[in-house]
Amino acid sequence: MTIQRVAIIGLGLLGGSIGLAITARGLDIATTGYDRDPNVRAKAAERGLVGKVCETAAEAVVDADLVILCVPVGAMGDAARALAPGLAPHAIISDVGSSKEAVAEALAAALPGACIIPAHPVAGTEQSGPEAGFATLFSGRWCIITPPDGVDPAALAALSDFWTLLGSKVELMDAAHHDLVLAVTSHIPHLIAYTIVGTASDLEDVTQSEVIKYSAGGFRDFTRIAASDPVMWRDVFLTNKGAVLEMLGRFSEDLAALQRAIRSGDGDTLFDLFTRTRAIRQQVIEQGQDDQRPDFGREHGE
Amino acid sequence: MTIQRVAIIGLGLLGGSIGLAITARGLDIATTGYDRDPNVRAKAAERGLVGKVCETAAEAVVDADLVILCVPVGAMGDAARALAPGLAPHAIISDVGSSKEAVAEALAAALPGACIIPAHPVAGTEQSGPEAGFATLFSGRWCIITPPDGVDPAALAALSDFWTLLGSKVELMDAAHHDLVLAVTSHIPHLIAYTIVGTASDLEDVTQSEVIKYSAGGFRDFTRIAASDPVMWRDVFLTNKGAVLEMLGRFSEDLAALQRAIRSGDGDTLFDLFTRTRAIRQQVIEQGQDDQRPDFGREHGE
Repeated sequence: MTIQRVAIIGLGLLGGSIGLAITARGLDIATTGYDRDPNVRAKAAERGLVGKVCETAAEAVVDADLVILCVPVGAMGDAARALAPGLAPHAIISDVGSSKEAVAEALAAALPGACIIPAHPVAGTEQSGPEAGFATLFSGRWCIITPPDGVDPAALAALSDFWTLLGSKVELMDAAHHDLVLAVTSHIPHLIAYTIVGTASDLEDVTQSEVIKYSAGGFRDFTRIAASDPVMWRDVFLTNKGAVLEMLGRFSEDLAALQRAIRSGDGDTLFDLFTRTRAIRQQVIEQGQDDQRPDFGREHGE
Repeated sequence: MTIQRVAIIGLGLLGGSIGLAITARGLDIATTGYDRDPNVRAKAAERGLVGKVCETAAEAVVDADLVILCVPVGAMGDAARALAPGLAPHAIISDVGSSKEAVAEALAAALPGACIIPAHPVAGTEQSGPEAGFATLFSGRWCIITPPDGVDPAALAALSDFWTLLGSKVELMDAAHHDLVLAVTSHIPHLIAYTIVGTASDLEDVTQSEVIKYSAGGFRDFTRIAASDPVMWRDVFLTNKGAVLEMLGRFSEDLAALQRAIRSGDGDTLFDLFTRTRAIRQQVIEQGQDDQRPDFGREHGE
């Protein structure tokens, strides 16, 4: 089975980048797209995010071999129901959502009997919308596919090949394990960043202007993550509640231990942790997951 | 009063960058330097971080108009006592430490009667040591000076001018207020980053290899901050204990409120905060405190 026609539902950062990557890599794949926001559809047509922007989801998926839902995870069920009338029987339904157990359930309920294979490309920026996408977003990044039990091996191979053609490295994983791993590597970091940026902007004794002025001391890194799409992230936390609360519990315990170390002046505990974490950064860089230049390669100078 | 000779004590990222900036900007200022680590002294001489690397701190400060201590904040007192024998009576003593009340006290105790004006350039990277410095580190960044009561106005003006010549924007602030502001914009962000990187590397159900592999979901940003110098940061938390614990308390309250919102499925609370924090990022960029390119301008693509 070969994927020749792809329908992209939701034309924001992820959906737009998929369309642009297909074109930029010269793949022999026709693309259609739909977004429920007419302004997004207009901008998508203007930027050429897909070959054809359709007026309904059902129209966009006609004859598609692969349908990729690129909408907030809380909107997956509704989006799937809306496209159902146009769906070809052989079509693979996939998505790019950041939580996978909830999405698998929502899609299975909305499209009984369809070939559903959820996926999550671990890639993005803090920007969103139809202007945010770019063709190299997935290059060299991991795409985690969480095939359900009894999946059609040919369909799974076709989806894996598709992501490989976009430049991604593909990994298969159980949906529940995905949700636990991403809770640590993505969801809790976002929750913490949102929290500290909120805390800092709410103080009486330190003004918001001071917080912004002196943000180069570390805070500015958190503001980037805390600028991520609010709807997308609200839905992630609500749909991956169990794993997020579990990991948050562990983080809070560890933070309390450091708080105690600071209060009691226990420098050795601080030093030991800070030495250990430095080594993790080294591995992130060695494995090609971040820029090795200091300060993310930020430009210094006037 | 004009600063014509500067002695830099501690030749790591900050000390080295001061020396390199003086040279790169063609300032008519002679530099001497000292580091207690002979390997650092050798490397500093090789890179030309200062005009002359001395074998003792007391030798380095002879005839200096300005002495800048660039050592971990917990080492300020000892470093000041070591250089005292060579100090000229007119010399200004300053530093680059991240906590200011504790440093002011330590320096006053070590050098009674000296002209002490603590300062904190809010600039740095996650790297440290004599190879880490570069001439543009301070360009366009804020330098906060915390003059003690009764400071000599001419000395204060000379120090302000010096930092302006290095490309910094200078702000005067009360030391206690500095410590509160920096607790929010720098110390707590570092503490949180160290904590989550520690938590993530300690899990049983998610392997360290998975954490690193999927770090592009947000976690990798935290690993950069958590790669910062362990000794420097241990000392920051121990010397700014009060403000750090105060701000940590507020952060923990806010995090508990979000945890409750997730548990109870209160999406509105999450959405409202996530919308508010997005606006803060916009201000950080508008005020020139960070790169406006998505994802810090990280390169995407193979």
